Amino acid sequence: MPGDDRPIGVFDSGMGGLTVLRALLARLPNERFVYLGDTARLPYGTKSPETVQAYALQATRLLVSEGVKMVVVACNTASAVALRPLTEALSPVPVIGVIEPGARAGVATTRNNHIAVIATEGTVKGAAYARAIAALNGNIKVVQQPCQVFVALAEEGWTNSPATRAAAEHYLGPLFKNPSAPDTLVLGCTHFPVLTETIRKVIGSKVALVDSAETTAIAVADALASGRLGSMSVTNGGGARIFATDSPERFARVGAVFLGRPIDAETVELVDLRAL
Amino acid sequence: MPGDDRPIGVFDSGMGGLTVLRALLARLPNERFVYLGDTARLPYGTKSPETVQAYALQATRLLVSEGVKMVVVACNTASAVALRPLTEALSPVPVIGVIEPGARAGVATTRNNHIAVIATEGTVKGAAYARAIAALNGNIKVVQQPCQVFVALAEEGWTNSPATRAAAEHYLGPLFKNPSAPDTLVLGCTHFPVLTETIRKVIGSKVALVDSAETTAIAVADALASGRLGSMSVTNGGGARIFATDSPERFARVGAVFLGRPIDAETVELVDLRAL
Repeated sequence: MPGDDRPIGVFDSGMGGLTVLRALLARLPNERFVYLGDTARLPYGTKSPETVQAYALQATRLLVSEGVKMVVVACNTASAVALRPLTEALSPVPVIGVIEPGARAGVATTRNNHIAVIATEGTVKGAAYARAIAALNGNIKVVQQPCQVFVALAEEGWTNSPATRAAAEHYLGPLFKNPSAPDTLVLGCTHFPVLTETIRKVIGSKVALVDSAETTAIAVADALASGRLGSMSVTNGGGARIFATDSPERFARVGAVFLGRPIDAETVELVDLRAL
Repeated sequence: MPGDDRPIGVFDSGMGGLTVLRALLARLPNERFVYLGDTARLPYGTKSPETVQAYALQATRLLVSEGVKMVVVACNTASAVALRPLTEALSPVPVIGVIEPGARAGVATTRNNHIAVIATEGTVKGAAYARAIAALNGNIKVVQQPCQVFVALAEEGWTNSPATRAAAEHYLGPLFKNPSAPDTLVLGCTHFPVLTETIRKVIGSKVALVDSAETTAIAVADALASGRLGSMSVTNGGGARIFATDSPERFARVGAVFLGRPIDAETVELVDLRAL
């Protein structure tokens, strides 16, 4: 499919996935994107796998109805527990999650075979990063740390505040204080890239940070370039439409933190997924 | 209805309302309670009024199907935006929210006619406390401060941590530093009573704290005692059944912070509200 100008669907429980959209827009400026944040039902990170699967199926059906050529699950929780049912349900539309690219980058980065993964409670409980890393290299030790409060701090826009620093010290200080500490930290939640500066202050300069938003954008670009999904669009119709299931005003305000630029609330389209 | 031994329904978006249940159990030890936490769809505080109304109606229908004699809306967001539709839909079962008792206690407490209310973004945006206070006394100045991060901190059990202290300094420090500051602080979110110790350190000893969980329990006891709702049960069948819409395990763990005592996850009954 040369010049396949269908859009790429990007889905998250809320606004955190905008860090993935941001990375995609930077890397694939000629592609069109349709982003859906299921804000009426966020967060997914504290919900059961069955609930997340049901919600993710509804969300991706909306993207498919928009004619997307690929679905990016820009949500760690949904990638962890719903990637297989989504892949089956959406076939032949390919589905790319954030876990596999992050795990792959972590494995490629570590030198001491010791990786730390920080994520929401739901992602940690599902242990998807640990399993994905083990599948790539069984000799790597993985330590998982839930950082639930980081989500609220990021959404508040406190990217570099005393409260965020204190939370980072609490969660990460003990992990990185001894000589056999992990040399690689995977940010296993799409909210966390905006906290990088504070996280860096706590973990020091020698630990490698793997940003799964960035690694997912690379995986999408690779999939497009491989030709399996049609080559990249060559039109100049790049950019993104944004759908949300609740409160465009809050989406625009909080989302700007994650997208890294202002969002006009009037461009956020309200949708109802419950009937899908 | 003398000796009306039907249970009292208590509803919240999640576990925060357990601070209200705790206050009710302490004050009304002979009453039976049915608590419902809509954990699959929490938080309500960031959702639109229409969504919260729809969710609250489904939740209270479950309580009514359990034969409750009264519904306590132990959720500030739902009390703020859904009390009237709930009251109409559930009639003749009476509905008591948390806003009115908290506002009334604030008005009775302030000496300098200046009250601060802290709450979630949704409650602040709806300005329900400000309106309820104005309806009682138009001369009182009300300042509202959204404290969204407090919710996550309370759920993490960080009742007295450096991160909570830093967040409290950020939110409350500026509010209380000048001589004309409010002399009364209303905790307008059911999560916040567990943060009282940290909040007290920031606001100092001279500001009166109004805990809306406590004031709501008093309002419920008054309503029962007034006879309008039947006198209090005289059986010894006190205690609470607990329903949740997701993950009994997480409900039990996080809920224990708010209820102030351990919760056995096996006693948390999973329910689905979507068909109600």
